[in-house]
Amino acid sequence: MGRRGYGPEFPDVTYKPHRYKESLFDTGDAKINYATCGASDKPALLLIPGQTESWWGYEPAMDLLLEHFQCFAVDLRGQGRSSRTPGRYTFDNFSNDMVKLVAFVIKRPVIVSGLSSGGVVAAWLSAYAPAGMIRGAHYEDPPLFSSEVNPRYGPSIREGAGPVFELYSTYLGDQWRVGDWEGMLAAAADELPAQRQSVFLAGYEKFKTEPPRNMKEYDPEWARAFVTGSVSASCDHARMLQNVKCPVLFTHHLSQIDVVTGQQAGAATVRQVDRVEAIIKKAGQHFTRMTVPDMGHNMHLQAPALYMKILLDWVKTLPSEDETRAGGIFDVT
Amino acid sequence: MGRRGYGPEFPDVTYKPHRYKESLFDTGDAKINYATCGASDKPALLLIPGQTESWWGYEPAMDLLLEHFQCFAVDLRGQGRSSRTPGRYTFDNFSNDMVKLVAFVIKRPVIVSGLSSGGVVAAWLSAYAPAGMIRGAHYEDPPLFSSEVNPRYGPSIREGAGPVFELYSTYLGDQWRVGDWEGMLAAAADELPAQRQSVFLAGYEKFKTEPPRNMKEYDPEWARAFVTGSVSASCDHARMLQNVKCPVLFTHHLSQIDVVTGQQAGAATVRQVDRVEAIIKKAGQHFTRMTVPDMGHNMHLQAPALYMKILLDWVKTLPSEDETRAGGIFDVT
Amino acid sequence: MGRRGYGPEFPDVTYKPHRYKESLFDTGDAKINYATCGASDKPALLLIPGQTESWWGYEPAMDLLLEHFQCFAVDLRGQGRSSRTPGRYTFDNFSNDMVKLVAFVIKRPVIVSGLSSGGVVAAWLSAYAPAGMIRGAHYEDPPLFSSEVNPRYGPSIREGAGPVFELYSTYLGDQWRVGDWEGMLAAAADELPAQRQSVFLAGYEKFKTEPPRNMKEYDPEWARAFVTGSVSASCDHARMLQNVKCPVLFTHHLSQIDVVTGQQAGAATVRQVDRVEAIIKKAGQHFTRMTVPDMGHNMHLQAPALYMKILLDWVKTLPSEDETRAGGIFDVT
Amino acid sequence: MGRRGYGPEFPDVTYKPHRYKESLFDTGDAKINYATCGASDKPALLLIPGQTESWWGYEPAMDLLLEHFQCFAVDLRGQGRSSRTPGRYTFDNFSNDMVKLVAFVIKRPVIVSGLSSGGVVAAWLSAYAPAGMIRGAHYEDPPLFSSEVNPRYGPSIREGAGPVFELYSTYLGDQWRVGDWEGMLAAAADELPAQRQSVFLAGYEKFKTEPPRNMKEYDPEWARAFVTGSVSASCDHARMLQNVKCPVLFTHHLSQIDVVTGQQAGAATVRQVDRVEAIIKKAGQHFTRMTVPDMGHNMHLQAPALYMKILLDWVKTLPSEDETRAGGIFDVT
Repeated sequence: MGRRGYGPEFPDVTYKPHRYKESLFDTGDAKINYATCGASDKPALLLIPGQTESWWGYEPAMDLLLEHFQCFAVDLRGQGRSSRTPGRYTFDNFSNDMVKLVAFVIKRPVIVSGLSSGGVVAAWLSAYAPAGMIRGAHYEDPPLFSSEVNPRYGPSIREGAGPVFELYSTYLGDQWRVGDWEGMLAAAADELPAQRQSVFLAGYEKFKTEPPRNMKEYDPEWARAFVTGSVSASCDHARMLQNVKCPVLFTHHLSQIDVVTGQQAGAATVRQVDRVEAIIKKAGQHFTRMTVPDMGHNMHLQAPALYMKILLDWVKTLPSEDETRAGGIFDVT
Repeated sequence: MGRRGYGPEFPDVTYKPHRYKESLFDTGDAKINYATCGASDKPALLLIPGQTESWWGYEPAMDLLLEHFQCFAVDLRGQGRSSRTPGRYTFDNFSNDMVKLVAFVIKRPVIVSGLSSGGVVAAWLSAYAPAGMIRGAHYEDPPLFSSEVNPRYGPSIREGAGPVFELYSTYLGDQWRVGDWEGMLAAAADELPAQRQSVFLAGYEKFKTEPPRNMKEYDPEWARAFVTGSVSASCDHARMLQNVKCPVLFTHHLSQIDVVTGQQAGAATVRQVDRVEAIIKKAGQHFTRMTVPDMGHNMHLQAPALYMKILLDWVKTLPSEDETRAGGIFDVT
Repeated sequence: MGRRGYGPEFPDVTYKPHRYKESLFDTGDAKINYATCGASDKPALLLIPGQTESWWGYEPAMDLLLEHFQCFAVDLRGQGRSSRTPGRYTFDNFSNDMVKLVAFVIKRPVIVSGLSSGGVVAAWLSAYAPAGMIRGAHYEDPPLFSSEVNPRYGPSIREGAGPVFELYSTYLGDQWRVGDWEGMLAAAADELPAQRQSVFLAGYEKFKTEPPRNMKEYDPEWARAFVTGSVSASCDHARMLQNVKCPVLFTHHLSQIDVVTGQQAGAATVRQVDRVEAIIKKAGQHFTRMTVPDMGHNMHLQAPALYMKILLDWVKTLPSEDETRAGGIFDVT
Repeated sequence: MGRRGYGPEFPDVTYKPHRYKESLFDTGDAKINYATCGASDKPALLLIPGQTESWWGYEPAMDLLLEHFQCFAVDLRGQGRSSRTPGRYTFDNFSNDMVKLVAFVIKRPVIVSGLSSGGVVAAWLSAYAPAGMIRGAHYEDPPLFSSEVNPRYGPSIREGAGPVFELYSTYLGDQWRVGDWEGMLAAAADELPAQRQSVFLAGYEKFKTEPPRNMKEYDPEWARAFVTGSVSASCDHARMLQNVKCPVLFTHHLSQIDVVTGQQAGAATVRQVDRVEAIIKKAGQHFTRMTVPDMGHNMHLQAPALYMKILLDWVKTLPSEDETRAGGIFDVT
């Protein structure tokens, strides 16, 4: 069967046009695609999608946000129209791409909101971005600790999303070089834990012979980087959170323990989120925690109005752009 | 400071005589020390100590057991008087040493009882020993799942004993080649999580300048093998338990969650033991679970009479030696 | 495409009958298939095939050998009719299967001859088998050092067979669960270094739509274990060779450096074999080195008469079976 | 013995003043120390020291260079007065610190010259820095391939500097928390390969009880990052070199094979440098190779005048600062 041919080398079968303007910025290490909307006199908002999502997962939210923000919705390397960078998918590399995008394209302090893996990138930026760059960071249902292979607290990725990522990695292959979509669906019954099978298969009910567009835009090597742990290998989550330097909003969505199997559903356990809260507060940063237990993993797509309301309420509490700028890399005084 | 000089190369400062006869068996891969007591017409009982323990941790229990069993209490490689085998401390190697000891020295079916890491070796034998070799396996408070770096269920070793093993590994070094005992005690306050410090330091209250004998007999490379995960690297606990082929007794001792730090104490969480139970039952094996919540990690040392009583009650339920022998490697019919 | 269905679960499409009798021995950890020929009053000869070979690669040689030896040609776990043991393909596990086969089935000292990966198993047995078990070990063109990911000497597997194993692993999958044979052949041009492509593709010239029988009998997870290094993870080759305890015959076949690409062909470099020789001699063992530069990797298949002649000449120099037996595990005096 | 107390937390015993002005730049992720000299109307030259060196290893060279360049000599994270960042020493992180330093402090295109590990950082910048940032890159005797644990070409670090780094890591410990300098020297005879012992011990002849200043300024966790391979884990050298985008000068110093032990001395083998050359030329970049076989590893310290001459001759061949600037991140047209 061989290479299915999705990704930037095969644009015709991979992409379609969108309502917001897209541009490419070359960091030297990767070409980063981003879409923009909103006026430049509004606060800058950097939107970072989750794993298997592209920037346009934010499209419905952007329709609402553009009144309040100048939005920059990105594709991380290995997502959407951004570069494929084999062997180089790490949170450090994902995040340094964002630092360069803010430094050389956005050129002023930003508020960042990232979902899931994008939420871990948001956490990275809140910890390690240059001074003056980040006004505040929204972590939308992020798998902190729970996406590591050997976390400081609680269960590892192996108990959570690991088996799904292993399916993606095995049957699709780095850069889609295996590309066996039907084989993957057929294998799910054998290879996924019982409680994850039905959710997984229901999600692809209408995509039995061809992957949905978001998957075509996804480099399955991401999945391998999470299964092997290389994505966080030199970016321990506990240590990262100890370095947070700006206000944080953490929205925690659905999280429960299956009473029969004893396995967790959701991006992180309550106890793991407790640890995130304790560490960031100990670091002296303002931490807003909002539990939305009936919400699926992706609030910005499922409930964009609620997502915006929560975001706007929190943004009011943040230091101003000028306060953030003072003494930082955008400060020209 | 350099090498302190403990271990088999430095017998004078490491060992002292014991009340039971010790012998060495050379598996080719390691010399295995074992002590014996009891008559050969009693059931054979293989006793496997825990990490940082040597065979003589069973001495008080052996005083009671010798009436009922022919006991073989061993030092695993890297423990007591057994060989040091740098780079080769894995559950597969520990356990294949035991297979050879049973095959060539004990030469008949055994009941096995192992504590902690020794309990994981007992689990290995219950799963992977040749047919006819194991009548039943007692896992005494074993860190199943919880001693893996990326377990199928629940928190990894990093949340449990990992930081203590990291101290041992860093300040003592493989084969004691660093040997900085005082440095290790001094570093505990900085390098251990708060709730583990006091227990750790209390344990060495009387050993401020020189390690206790059990530590002198311990190769700190064990600790490194657990911290890095090499000890279980090709011996996944979930898969191992799916292969269990004999009756199992699981005694689960102290296990609790610290309400302030949210961290677990004890060798494994209740939920992890639930998974062990579910998997072994699904494999069709008889599983006896006994929770002894007020018991420390080492029941055979702390409460040898209770340990013996529990063991004897369970042994009555096991297939006889002849039943075990039938069709197995010791069957000469 | 999903699972192709090769291996022991799919015997009809995988296997065919052979001229020598096959039997299964269950080590507890794996069922090991072996074929026998020759009389029991001849010296026992254990034959261990190479990677992607099964025991019947020795069939032409056995036709000649049976006059001189009682032959036991095996399938290692993951080869031929032996068990698939996911996550457990290590040299320690391969080799401990052999120890149990010799102990419980052959029951007397053996001469061992293994090709390639089987030659590394032969090396393991020469180093770590119980005393009295091995009269001598023939390493047939073994990738010592060169099959490690981070060897003590010379280039790693990444410069040698690594890219081929990566193809097998990616496109066939553990236990053939991907099973995309055509995709693998199509990908070879992209994914193999230039100088390996033509050899690789020529080898499968007649197998464009269906794998040859030896591949059907091979668990591609072996390939993954070599690419990741898990196969040798706790079995460092340098340390293993320092422990060799019996006479060794090393036949070194084709080995050259491509003048244009600078890459080595052959199982190991001359310098790596020099190191093997130096270490084994330093260990005090008799070492016979024979370079056969115009010979392909598999002499026993390509030139069985020469293979037998070399083996017989060397066997004359070995200690007798009784000398080997003395003081070892088969010694009943 | 415990923590010796070297590094930024213990400035009094670690550092002394130097003749050139030092400044700290905070990248958010690390504070980077750098020293400057020369006029801002001269070409900018970024100097990156080798492992166990600090910026002031360039002091003698800077005395000569200041006439021709505006020099910025840096301490990488974990060197000199720059931050210690436990768990985060990777070529990606080292190099992204440099990108930020050039972007926010130097603010114009630079020529980069780096020694050894610093030469690998120079290679990174030549491959992955943003467009317009690097005029040319001098790799001074860099361990390309040879500092990886599983390189694409030739022997790994284990055959080269690995054993020395293992000594540093074991006896000094991350952030000097073991700090057993004498123990390290005492252990060298046991733990280093014969041909490396004498060089190693001669280097510390005058430092038997206290480490030299450059070592005090070195975080021994660097050594661990190289031994384990985490430093290059998501930065494969072969792939990196395929992305080189500017002219390169490679000076290759002493490199030879010991005729007795068969082991290489020097930072990389001739064949490994051949591969570097072939890859960079294939990437379409101008590659200048200069072999200086009688030169020690550190030419800028050992022969600063020759170092400057070679550098100046090559700089004449580079695109001008304005040519480099065109279309890049410093281009404000």
